[in-house]
Amino acid sequence: MMKTLDVPLADRSYPIYIGKDLLSQADLLTQHIQGKEVLIVTNSTVAPLYLQQVEDSLKDHRCAAVILPDGEEFKTLEILNQIFDKLLTERFSRKATLIALGGGVIGDMTGFAAASYQRGVDFIQIPTTLLSQVDSSVGGKTAVNHPLGKNMIGAFYQPKCVIADTLTLNTLEDRQLSSGLAEVIKYGLINDLDFFEWLEQNSGALLQRDQAVLAEAIERSCQDKVDLVAQDEHEQGVRALLNLGHTFGHAIETGMGYGNFLHGEGVSVGMLMAADLSQRMGWLELTDVDRIRNALIALGLPVTVPKGMTAERFMSLMSVDKKVQEGKIRFVLLKKIGKAVISDDYSADKLAETLSVFES
Amino acid sequence: MMKTLDVPLADRSYPIYIGKDLLSQADLLTQHIQGKEVLIVTNSTVAPLYLQQVEDSLKDHRCAAVILPDGEEFKTLEILNQIFDKLLTERFSRKATLIALGGGVIGDMTGFAAASYQRGVDFIQIPTTLLSQVDSSVGGKTAVNHPLGKNMIGAFYQPKCVIADTLTLNTLEDRQLSSGLAEVIKYGLINDLDFFEWLEQNSGALLQRDQAVLAEAIERSCQDKVDLVAQDEHEQGVRALLNLGHTFGHAIETGMGYGNFLHGEGVSVGMLMAADLSQRMGWLELTDVDRIRNALIALGLPVTVPKGMTAERFMSLMSVDKKVQEGKIRFVLLKKIGKAVISDDYSADKLAETLSVFES
Repeated sequence: MMKTLDVPLADRSYPIYIGKDLLSQADLLTQHIQGKEVLIVTNSTVAPLYLQQVEDSLKDHRCAAVILPDGEEFKTLEILNQIFDKLLTERFSRKATLIALGGGVIGDMTGFAAASYQRGVDFIQIPTTLLSQVDSSVGGKTAVNHPLGKNMIGAFYQPKCVIADTLTLNTLEDRQLSSGLAEVIKYGLINDLDFFEWLEQNSGALLQRDQAVLAEAIERSCQDKVDLVAQDEHEQGVRALLNLGHTFGHAIETGMGYGNFLHGEGVSVGMLMAADLSQRMGWLELTDVDRIRNALIALGLPVTVPKGMTAERFMSLMSVDKKVQEGKIRFVLLKKIGKAVISDDYSADKLAETLSVFES
Repeated sequence: MMKTLDVPLADRSYPIYIGKDLLSQADLLTQHIQGKEVLIVTNSTVAPLYLQQVEDSLKDHRCAAVILPDGEEFKTLEILNQIFDKLLTERFSRKATLIALGGGVIGDMTGFAAASYQRGVDFIQIPTTLLSQVDSSVGGKTAVNHPLGKNMIGAFYQPKCVIADTLTLNTLEDRQLSSGLAEVIKYGLINDLDFFEWLEQNSGALLQRDQAVLAEAIERSCQDKVDLVAQDEHEQGVRALLNLGHTFGHAIETGMGYGNFLHGEGVSVGMLMAADLSQRMGWLELTDVDRIRNALIALGLPVTVPKGMTAERFMSLMSVDKKVQEGKIRFVLLKKIGKAVISDDYSADKLAETLSVFES
């Protein structure tokens, strides 16, 4: 029961493998490793769970591991340097392969380390959270944070393959699982009404971690993202639709301090805020907004803004976002469920209304 | 009296402008800047000489500057971060342009910062040393050093244009000028006998900084490098010929401590060592080796190894070079003057002889 999805990017195309217990299939991994030198990058939470299993697949390789501290607050240039230290201490060459074993933070840092080590070595993603399986698997975005902004230092860099083993989702906390489902339902909202309806119907099975239903949700999410990214690898146009809910969401994440509000939780509230603003623009019906709210709640996601996030706080935090162009914040809004647009054509009054309604 | 040389790289092609007093032509620079935000990155030696002149060209832009300490020892991730700090403090967007104003260190760091800031912004090179005008202008190599190895962290990233103003060479120390000439004569040795002969004839004019002769030397060097790089952008094959003299040379640079022996000085001695080894392989005549030695001396370059560089020291330092593949060091050697080859097909005995003859 394995699905394979190809990400078509000319000479940088690669497969995403999705299914149950893929980590036990050593050849899935090893067929994409060209040399003998392999560095596994993981964190202190994931290492005790899956590092041994991955190392067992690499018995014929010269395999080393770096175990980083777990958390978004460690996604920095300083911690990135620990990966370079290890690569150089091991004297790994340009033929080395880096394996990212963990969630989005590990994927982002390992990808950027691979992009930069000796100006580029191979890397493979083994995402172990739902969020990273549906989000960082496609698109080639890698980065670290800077004290003055999230993901400000990075590269576009594609992996050789992605292995999404649904069994790894069994060790996720409920909150982490729901956080991933926020990105899943995002694809439905952006351009896939069928998928949105399927998610409404399957929210119970997803929360119960039905392996086949999870695999289908991952595949459909990745396919939707592939369709957008293939049109726009370097985020000049339609790819920006993937930021639905992210401008509001990043503000909440940053405002609450990285790690206190999960990324998907911020995106969940942010998508509802985008829906609210879209309704005020006359695009969505009030019943659509309610439907989105109910779908988010059914997936175990928050729909209200945490304490302390005033309208003023939102405006200040959103003004440093990468999506700002020439002073005006560009939002992703909804023309209807399944049809997102990028717009700076909203009125400041309507935005103020949305912020004020959600203010806590 | 301006020469323009195009570096053909499909959608990343760019021009190199070479000539006298180009810094006074504001439009040369501004036509390649797409937004309003410009960050000039320079160092404490170059800033007092040329920063004001460049800023004067950018009166219609929002222009900021970072002045880094001067020297290879500052080509680190930590100092790189000062560029990111400035970009973020200024809240510069993805439409920003970085300008590298200085030698190779400034070019390498600014290029890598541009490659990584928000996953890639534009950059322009204004190289102010002969070495950087003939070397870093072409090829898109950017990097910082790591305590365990030179240029280990970086990216391949192309500038929007390069402006090589020969007038800036008048403020170079003699030793710096000669160091640049080592890279110039390298192109002759690799694949351009005509150019080698022209350099033998014009060494006096070059050392006297004749502007027209310098411009011609820069143009021919860049053209020779373009020809190699266009065939092999990511250094899989023929581009490696550019490393003539560099494996020996890097060992000397590292062994003496960065900055004590200039890069071109190391390359000069390294090229002569490569010629010596080539002669021992039966490829060059003894008279060719003498001719190369004399040409280097005429350009004010060293031809002997500094004290302390024993054969053993060389072997230890060369074994960590990026050019090592599966345990064996690959050298660039000379079949004749004007015909270099990459080879690991030398005997260990001959290498030992070369190291022992040069040992000091």
